[in-house]
Amino acid sequence: MIHGGEVHSYSHIKYDFSVNINPLGVPEGVVAAVKNGLEKMECYPDQECRALRSALSMRLKVSEDEILCGNGASELILLMAEALRPGKTLLTAPSFLGYAHALNATGSEIQYFPLKAENGFKLTEDYLSYLNSDIELAILCSPSNPVGNTIDSGLLKDIAASCAEKGIYLLCDQCFAGFLADEDGCSAIHFIRDEGISRYLLVLDAFTKRYAMPGIRLGYAVSGNKWLLSRMKSLQTEWSVSSLAQVAGLAALRTPEGYMIETLSLLGTERKFLSEELQGLGIKVYTGDANYIFFETEKQIFRPLFDRGILIRHCDNYVGLSDEHYRVAIKKHEDNEVLVSELKRIMY
Amino acid sequence: MIHGGEVHSYSHIKYDFSVNINPLGVPEGVVAAVKNGLEKMECYPDQECRALRSALSMRLKVSEDEILCGNGASELILLMAEALRPGKTLLTAPSFLGYAHALNATGSEIQYFPLKAENGFKLTEDYLSYLNSDIELAILCSPSNPVGNTIDSGLLKDIAASCAEKGIYLLCDQCFAGFLADEDGCSAIHFIRDEGISRYLLVLDAFTKRYAMPGIRLGYAVSGNKWLLSRMKSLQTEWSVSSLAQVAGLAALRTPEGYMIETLSLLGTERKFLSEELQGLGIKVYTGDANYIFFETEKQIFRPLFDRGILIRHCDNYVGLSDEHYRVAIKKHEDNEVLVSELKRIMY
Repeated sequence: MIHGGEVHSYSHIKYDFSVNINPLGVPEGVVAAVKNGLEKMECYPDQECRALRSALSMRLKVSEDEILCGNGASELILLMAEALRPGKTLLTAPSFLGYAHALNATGSEIQYFPLKAENGFKLTEDYLSYLNSDIELAILCSPSNPVGNTIDSGLLKDIAASCAEKGIYLLCDQCFAGFLADEDGCSAIHFIRDEGISRYLLVLDAFTKRYAMPGIRLGYAVSGNKWLLSRMKSLQTEWSVSSLAQVAGLAALRTPEGYMIETLSLLGTERKFLSEELQGLGIKVYTGDANYIFFETEKQIFRPLFDRGILIRHCDNYVGLSDEHYRVAIKKHEDNEVLVSELKRIMY
Repeated sequence: MIHGGEVHSYSHIKYDFSVNINPLGVPEGVVAAVKNGLEKMECYPDQECRALRSALSMRLKVSEDEILCGNGASELILLMAEALRPGKTLLTAPSFLGYAHALNATGSEIQYFPLKAENGFKLTEDYLSYLNSDIELAILCSPSNPVGNTIDSGLLKDIAASCAEKGIYLLCDQCFAGFLADEDGCSAIHFIRDEGISRYLLVLDAFTKRYAMPGIRLGYAVSGNKWLLSRMKSLQTEWSVSSLAQVAGLAALRTPEGYMIETLSLLGTERKFLSEELQGLGIKVYTGDANYIFFETEKQIFRPLFDRGILIRHCDNYVGLSDEHYRVAIKKHEDNEVLVSELKRIMY
């Protein structure tokens, strides 16, 4: 299993904690819009995603030509790697495995900045010293995956500025930023307006996690570097973003505020519940701000949970982690209770 | 306008003849399946497209590991070009512009085999002499686009055999083959079972045209060369084929036979109707077997039709064609009558 969410081969799985999507599920308005927009199946997608980019532009306060939509954030990661074909790329260890997929596909060497357990796997200022001239691309994720902690906004700005100064492209993946209490304060998107920085910065986000629609495939990249976006588009599959994805994305952007307010409230309560219960079982829980909990235990819990129909993310295939690391999504209370009660049986 | 189907910028267009999809529209079963499968939005797509490949495998009589699904045929064209990175590729002139898009993206030099007007733009045996050792990839389309004629099965086999002998990969694009009266007899898919040929052959097809679902994005490649398919997959965007596309594809494969029987019957009648009406207007109509008609006229008809809300495919951006070449989809009779009656006003 390379990623979470690989439930397709396991029909007995009743609870999928391996996938980090909004526990509230797809907003009703998105389901309704796709249902009402099924006739769009018969039309070629707008290759320029005009309506969607226009709506995103208003939401993000950037111009439409600073946005490129893609077939999930994954396509945009691949396109950035293809556009730049960096000789060497700096990743953190651990980090989302999709980056290595894209870098392997484009033949980039990978250097890892080790996130340390004693710092709670949080990015530290040491990172700046890794930004050497032989690095051509740096990829960061905030909140990070699989740990879920957020890069301090001051440090993030220093990194972006240092990258720009040294001619290093920076991909800042904010696919989980929708779950932050202060998304705006933590976002790199403001740097798009900073001329000294914007040329080397690309901010990545997706509808996948925020609106619980991973089956639709819709992500977007924001950059002040028009050459980069245009180069990425020239390498992109034609009609890459499906008509239904464009319909779904537009509807998602019209989701009433209450949806995210309820999401954040649920996550706050349930993060506390799950963290305390896990700690009560003697499990080391790391601090995180996203919709998942990252923890460490010597006890082999993956298989026993799996046998009980619960899939969690065993993090043993992340560089920098071991088979004692796990990630679970924060779901609705009744689901989280099932996880806790099964864990109690296994741990004792 | 690079391709047909670019109606998004033209809200006044009432009749889109620039797009070549099944005139019957999406099969009811596909619409129903997607409507009933909307909860799949909330699940990551099966990266292996297991159910879909299993159904395709039965339909095509090839094994599941000889099939790779993609985000439209377009993604698979790009992936084949990326996997092989051919120094020089042989295209026909004219041919679908998506090939050049993929080859430009991967830096391949393009050599053109000129299809001649005096042969009705049909592929001839001369093509074999273009298969020189400096060609690494050859791309053919049958029925061809934009002309719509079919490669003789004997010639196609000779080409495939010659390619294999010379170590030239052959991409045989059959995205319009579903509209042939004798699809089976014209298909290159049989060569997958021919050990002498299969190593260098990839057959491409899509749900797009056959089932009128270009907004869904779903294509597939068939090859006996496991290395090639696995290399393409390693370069593919993760979760590239959306959950809804997989649902739609599975449903499409269960479409009752009557749908394609009615399609072929309608196309037969309407191809004759449109051809005769166009010829009656002094327009030179080329013979074709697909769901579109390719023709030539000195009269500038694109703009006047456009102003009347009718979009046709002006073929002036195809290598090997001029601004006197046009392509129109064969649609339902009432639509075709509108086209003919507007053309009559313009031509006289």
